[in-house]
Amino acid sequence: MPKKKYAVGVDLGGTSIKVGLVDEKGKITKRLSLDSCAEMGPEKVIAQIKMGIKEISKGKRSKFAGIGIGAPGAVKLKKGTVENPPNFPGWGKIHLGNILRKEFKCDVFVENDANAAAVGELIYGSGRKLKNFVMITLGTGVGSGIISEKKIFRGETGLAGEIGHVSIDFRGEQCKCGSIGCIEAYIGSNYLIERTKKKLEENNNSILYHLTGGDLNLLTPKIISLAAEQNDEFAKSVIIDTGIKLGYVLSSTVHVLDISQFIIGGGLAGFGNLLLEAVENSIKERVMKTFRDRICVNAAKLKNDAGIKGASALVFYKS
Amino acid sequence: MPKKKYAVGVDLGGTSIKVGLVDEKGKITKRLSLDSCAEMGPEKVIAQIKMGIKEISKGKRSKFAGIGIGAPGAVKLKKGTVENPPNFPGWGKIHLGNILRKEFKCDVFVENDANAAAVGELIYGSGRKLKNFVMITLGTGVGSGIISEKKIFRGETGLAGEIGHVSIDFRGEQCKCGSIGCIEAYIGSNYLIERTKKKLEENNNSILYHLTGGDLNLLTPKIISLAAEQNDEFAKSVIIDTGIKLGYVLSSTVHVLDISQFIIGGGLAGFGNLLLEAVENSIKERVMKTFRDRICVNAAKLKNDAGIKGASALVFYKS
Repeated sequence: MPKKKYAVGVDLGGTSIKVGLVDEKGKITKRLSLDSCAEMGPEKVIAQIKMGIKEISKGKRSKFAGIGIGAPGAVKLKKGTVENPPNFPGWGKIHLGNILRKEFKCDVFVENDANAAAVGELIYGSGRKLKNFVMITLGTGVGSGIISEKKIFRGETGLAGEIGHVSIDFRGEQCKCGSIGCIEAYIGSNYLIERTKKKLEENNNSILYHLTGGDLNLLTPKIISLAAEQNDEFAKSVIIDTGIKLGYVLSSTVHVLDISQFIIGGGLAGFGNLLLEAVENSIKERVMKTFRDRICVNAAKLKNDAGIKGASALVFYKS
Repeated sequence: MPKKKYAVGVDLGGTSIKVGLVDEKGKITKRLSLDSCAEMGPEKVIAQIKMGIKEISKGKRSKFAGIGIGAPGAVKLKKGTVENPPNFPGWGKIHLGNILRKEFKCDVFVENDANAAAVGELIYGSGRKLKNFVMITLGTGVGSGIISEKKIFRGETGLAGEIGHVSIDFRGEQCKCGSIGCIEAYIGSNYLIERTKKKLEENNNSILYHLTGGDLNLLTPKIISLAAEQNDEFAKSVIIDTGIKLGYVLSSTVHVLDISQFIIGGGLAGFGNLLLEAVENSIKERVMKTFRDRICVNAAKLKNDAGIKGASALVFYKS
């Protein structure tokens, strides 16, 4: 019998389903992307997932170690139940793991996508040598997965690590979730871009004007990075402020979890070392002395395809 | 051989060492208190602990299940190492567990005191039917112990649950720990009393004036409770505001841990249902919808002697 050395990783998103065949070292050897068809209801979504897995696994089934799925929202492990994932209308509770086990007759591991990303770093990435860390994903949302003693800390429904909705100011910014002062309402990429555009009105000598061709609606985190690389003081201040605010939340996270290692990924991780240093300094400034010397903030290793890779890592993590 | 049904619980504090003989139901059948002699250095403290245990165990050694110790600060389980406990000068790292194992030739379990209090509620108290909860202790400090799947969530050094230093406002009150906006700087009992005294200057028709005989330096949480029971609006507002602010931190805690059950103990738990309801409402107002319906806040069952009982519970929890 050949050694089973491939896992299928499925990154289930509201817009697209990304599927990849991934080897034990985290290399994607084959990939495809399908429309999620979320608005057409769960049966269609499941049909799309099955189609993607069938297509990617053609001729490789004998080398399969299993299927890993990273899904948004609450997940129950045993039956691989995905509950009311955001942006999937009419979903309710679906035992996605059981459905796929029946179809493909192999091991299937379903996890919340933030936890899958953390397992990706644990198995293939910057967390390989760590026992305890929090993997932060900075994008439209601010999420995290918590690894404690090399295991996912899931909480009651797999949603532990929703740090985007930890508040840094009880009288602060209104967040779309309904609460106040959530870090996501400061550094979630859409909020960040909106606030940066407003501040730019008072800083009209920034080269961000030049880089957007004068149309600030074209402003993106990538353009802010480019301006900072060209030493634009305003762009640098945006990145540093993002890091400082993230540090406020992470210092609270340190106090709750007694975990001192952080790995930062997602689109805004493109802000690079300027961001990482600001985060680390901010945490150190705000944590109790007993934690200070242990604090360490690193970049994620898995960049693009972190979704597929993290999902596939669930297979190697479990097996 | 007789059934081993007693544990010795040792509550190690900066001022006194409380020792009790505790049965499986959490009843203290014998107790004593010794001076910690913390300022005389660790050898003297250890001698005091040994003396307390010897005294309490006279004639009962054959029924001993073991010794449990709740200690302040960071603890390592294997050797029962207590590291730099606050208010114990010159301590460093001491393998207290190993020292006592050698002396008494029985099982010895050393834990951080907040974790021990949580185990007390898990084994004897309001957490007996819960798999996941956070036990909050409200006193001079604001601490907590986290129970996940009926186990202590310790973090790297046993200090997980330091929620007193979770910030609710990054531009807020200065905390003695050096950070800003820590919940302890709002509702830690000393801070709370100081702030209440200042507010009283603007609310001089409160019966708190009467209850303190006009000397506000005599104000205590107990007196605030008494005034609230007599329907004093000002005293009630102090209690409700304490609950609301605690709720802000606990809603962040829910987002980090995905744990929705809370047990409130410590001196300020004497504020009673008025406090508990304010906490629960405040959490529900601030958490994401997916968590809201699960949120539940209850009073601790172990009141006085929670320290001794929690420490003794470590023995029954482990064995």
